[in-house]
Amino acid sequence: MKLIIAVVQDKDSNRLINALSHENFQTTKLATTGGFLKEGNTTLMIGCQDEHIDDALKIIKENCSQREQMVAPISPMGGNADSYIPKPVKVEVGGATVFILPIESFYRF
Amino acid sequence: MKLIIAVVQDKDSNRLINALSHENFQTTKLATTGGFLKEGNTTLMIGCQDEHIDDALKIIKENCSQREQMVAPISPMGGNADSYIPKPVKVEVGGATVFILPIESFYRF
Amino acid sequence: MKLIIAVVQDKDSNRLINALSHENFQTTKLATTGGFLKEGNTTLMIGCQDEHIDDALKIIKENCSQREQMVAPISPMGGNADSYIPKPVKVEVGGATVFILPIESFYRF
Ligand code: NI
Ligand code: NI
Ligand code: NI
Repeated sequence: MKLIIAVVQDKDSNRLINALSHENFQTTKLATTGGFLKEGNTTLMIGCQDEHIDDALKIIKENCSQREQMVAPISPMGGNADSYIPKPVKVEVGGATVFILPIESFYRF
Repeated sequence: MKLIIAVVQDKDSNRLINALSHENFQTTKLATTGGFLKEGNTTLMIGCQDEHIDDALKIIKENCSQREQMVAPISPMGGNADSYIPKPVKVEVGGATVFILPIESFYRF
Repeated sequence: MKLIIAVVQDKDSNRLINALSHENFQTTKLATTGGFLKEGNTTLMIGCQDEHIDDALKIIKENCSQREQMVAPISPMGGNADSYIPKPVKVEVGGATVFILPIESFYRF
């Protein structure tokens, strides 16, 4: 048994929790502010048997890997909005920081 | 020294924190959403000397074990409220998921 | 690699996060209520290579140690406000509870 602590972006967290739940991993979501990644991240705790660690990591990787995304930039405040043509820009989104912690014992009551 | 991480139901958390505090266990309560148990749970971190682990587990078990409770069901929305006689139903409440983590070192400043 | 879990007072947390960040430590801030210290504390998770543990502890100690502070007391409710001369009182502020946890493995995706 291990405790997986995964810090992921908010926008990826629900998809990840659903994907983990679909494979019978139970997760606890901690409210997180600031952190390892850019603003707006979520910390998940996942209790996991040793033989399922690789599966859990695969699911985290599939749902949260850092990737590029085209986004429409916010128009500049106080600028000349008429002549401003927003051009989509590439940004890095996603990313996961994952700690796997040993557990001395585990109980359910 | 160990770090106990306990995920319990919100409704049991204050009673548990009081019971732990009464026995001189210091707890930190993390805001939690969703998780190992049904919606509405709380994660507690409890720093604990090795020889007191059994005491802490006993207190968690006494205050948070899964148990049955009779609850009045919510009357159906849009149904015929006049003819609706609510019959109490048995539901499972409580429950605790407890991880005991080894600590390499511990400091107070 | 270790996972440092530090419970500090809210009022010290931003200064600590900035000081850690300045030395390239990445922290995740968990919303915390109640706990090891007086009301209003914050839990930080800091992933840390073994050889940098002492640096991280030094920064935590410098920014969060328990110390005395003179504060103006709140004037008594319903008392005779005219004749009330607030006298600053010494209070203990700050303090940090720090757990260093071993990590079995660590990933970034
Ligand atoms: Ni299995
Ligand atoms: Ni003792
Ligand atoms: Ni280095």
